[in-house]
Amino acid sequence: MQLPQGFLAAGVHAGISKKKNKPDCAIFYSEKICNWAGVFTTNRVQAAPVVLSQSRLRRGIAQAIVVNSGCANACTGKKGYLDAQTMCEATAKNLSLKTDNVLVASTGVIGKFLPMNKVKAGIRQLASIILSPKGYNSQSTLSAVHAIMTTDTVSKISCKQFKTKGGSYSIWACAKGAGMIHPNMATMLSFILTDAGLSTMSMKKMLKVAADRSFNSLSIDGDTSTNDSVFFLSNGVSGLFLKARQELEKLQEGLNRVCEDLAKQIALDGEGATKRVELLVKGARAKSEAKKVAETIATSPLIKTALFGGDPNWGRIMAAIGRAGVDLNPSKIDISFDGLCVAKKGCAVRFSEKKAQAILNKKIVPLVINLNQGQFSTRYFSCDFSPDYVKINSDYRT
Amino acid sequence: MQLPQGFLAAGVHAGISKKKNKPDCAIFYSEKICNWAGVFTTNRVQAAPVVLSQSRLRRGIAQAIVVNSGCANACTGKKGYLDAQTMCEATAKNLSLKTDNVLVASTGVIGKFLPMNKVKAGIRQLASIILSPKGYNSQSTLSAVHAIMTTDTVSKISCKQFKTKGGSYSIWACAKGAGMIHPNMATMLSFILTDAGLSTMSMKKMLKVAADRSFNSLSIDGDTSTNDSVFFLSNGVSGLFLKARQELEKLQEGLNRVCEDLAKQIALDGEGATKRVELLVKGARAKSEAKKVAETIATSPLIKTALFGGDPNWGRIMAAIGRAGVDLNPSKIDISFDGLCVAKKGCAVRFSEKKAQAILNKKIVPLVINLNQGQFSTRYFSCDFSPDYVKINSDYRT
Repeated sequence: MQLPQGFLAAGVHAGISKKKNKPDCAIFYSEKICNWAGVFTTNRVQAAPVVLSQSRLRRGIAQAIVVNSGCANACTGKKGYLDAQTMCEATAKNLSLKTDNVLVASTGVIGKFLPMNKVKAGIRQLASIILSPKGYNSQSTLSAVHAIMTTDTVSKISCKQFKTKGGSYSIWACAKGAGMIHPNMATMLSFILTDAGLSTMSMKKMLKVAADRSFNSLSIDGDTSTNDSVFFLSNGVSGLFLKARQELEKLQEGLNRVCEDLAKQIALDGEGATKRVELLVKGARAKSEAKKVAETIATSPLIKTALFGGDPNWGRIMAAIGRAGVDLNPSKIDISFDGLCVAKKGCAVRFSEKKAQAILNKKIVPLVINLNQGQFSTRYFSCDFSPDYVKINSDYRT
Repeated sequence: MQLPQGFLAAGVHAGISKKKNKPDCAIFYSEKICNWAGVFTTNRVQAAPVVLSQSRLRRGIAQAIVVNSGCANACTGKKGYLDAQTMCEATAKNLSLKTDNVLVASTGVIGKFLPMNKVKAGIRQLASIILSPKGYNSQSTLSAVHAIMTTDTVSKISCKQFKTKGGSYSIWACAKGAGMIHPNMATMLSFILTDAGLSTMSMKKMLKVAADRSFNSLSIDGDTSTNDSVFFLSNGVSGLFLKARQELEKLQEGLNRVCEDLAKQIALDGEGATKRVELLVKGARAKSEAKKVAETIATSPLIKTALFGGDPNWGRIMAAIGRAGVDLNPSKIDISFDGLCVAKKGCAVRFSEKKAQAILNKKIVPLVINLNQGQFSTRYFSCDFSPDYVKINSDYRT
């Protein structure tokens, strides 16, 4: 669970969130300047920190990320943008960095201004923890991970060690996100750190690949947030600068696994979720069509409520496939629940209702849809829809 | 509430639905052959009765519609299609009609076969009610309306009388639908009857106009059904054959109002719904963009749950607009709840939280989104999302 070499992280309760004593402000810091890549929300309404961090993407170097929960700093106009800038400036000042090398992220309620005095005091506190050899300990990293959580019930961390002839390096990543989660980023923040040395160009490519098959193949409720951001930082402190194709492929594999691991953790911790659904859509004529079908199934309230109830109502899956906007022949479609075939060639088949219910009542539910129209497939992560989702979201703000 | 002249309708409990004594099979019948028009689901997975009724659309004439609830006869392959044909044949035989002049509709669980012996017995019973001057009474029509209901909690009827110099005619319509409701038809059935005389051509045009601004501007849960059908029958028994532009416009207006009335009733009776949301999206650059925005707002689980909780969380509306797939400038958007401005130019404004909550806790909630990017607008009907929606749908089938 240790951070890659040269990275430090800390979290404190600054008083931005209403939850007492919960850490709500964090800094991820590298002793050495990093190369970085990022992917951000595709929502046309972008929060101030997203706009600001994105503007630093082209420069490609960074040394710290400051992040808060409890307030999204979205729909806050010019003042919101200035507040995001002030967060970077305060972080830079307290850590003696260049402001341009500080990135920023926020998550929480939309349409409220940040309590800047509290934020600035929090940043001062964070910097003193990070810079003091005595104040900093392994608990600090966990506080940072807690600080980014909102309605999450568990913290989400994933890491991987790599050993090469020249030495070893690691990837460490954490994420938050439980609601407003939908492809192309969601109220999802993720921070991925590695002490391997990487060029900005290769980081950008690798992050896109990893994000597409993890965070962008994930839906809790179909709502794409204004604040989604994934940051990937490499500081090269391991002394290993990866350039060879084989080395990069190995890291790509590890990065994919770490991101997928986080996406799965997010799905299982979906607001009110009682189970994770792992969809595999096969036999599509194109990757994009497989994804459309998967997305429609993953976001259908009727399917998600049936899954909550453990009801093997495959007819709703057929109906969702039919409205996915993909031209297909329904009489070729097969559906199975964890190996148990429930529909063949678009029609009912006999199956044990008991067995099907038992599968749907597990913590992890694998659903396979074979469209049988072509050769393309995709995986997708989702969860069920319980009365608790409604409870959590009907009084989140007030 | 009387049917237009020359129409008769009856409903009986045939035992298709599991609910004891609830009527689940109905016939709408005209003493004279009708011209008809219809609009059907756009779902690629179409139930057998949709395929069959649609195949009779070109002929344009009909004399009866047989309909059942409790079983959608969808994803039932060739046997399902033969069953739908048998329903028409049995109806034709018992009412001495041509089979080609009988239309058919079903609603209920997908992927189950119809219990044909029960269905045929029900049809015999219905025919004997319709053909017997003693057996038929005003209660019969209400039984037909009840027979099409599934999770609906109230029956949905709308009608309108027209007086002209030449005499009078009327439009009578009923509908069902509470879940799996989304534009381009839903598990929504509607039967619209008029004793005015109309050409098939003008009926087709008029029905499209009326459906677009009512049933196709309506969403309960974003799930489009395999069975949606709207039937519009005209038997001309009033003796008035409408041809003049002015007369047709008058009927169009009435038809629009009847359909909109039914759409509103469906929204308010959405599964688990506690309120109806009436969205007006203004200032779009195109009608299609206004509709995309409205649809995204109307189907967002986060917005629907906030509405249930009476939480004026307008930030979620901004986030939904931003992911609607419309190229727009968020810093121009105004949002108001029944006249109370809650966001201006994409940003927070001060408003009375109490007043906003009071508005959201009413039975009917008008939301106005002014995109301020162009001249086009659209209306859209929706409802909130309560824990009851989840309860209703987590054990509908088993």
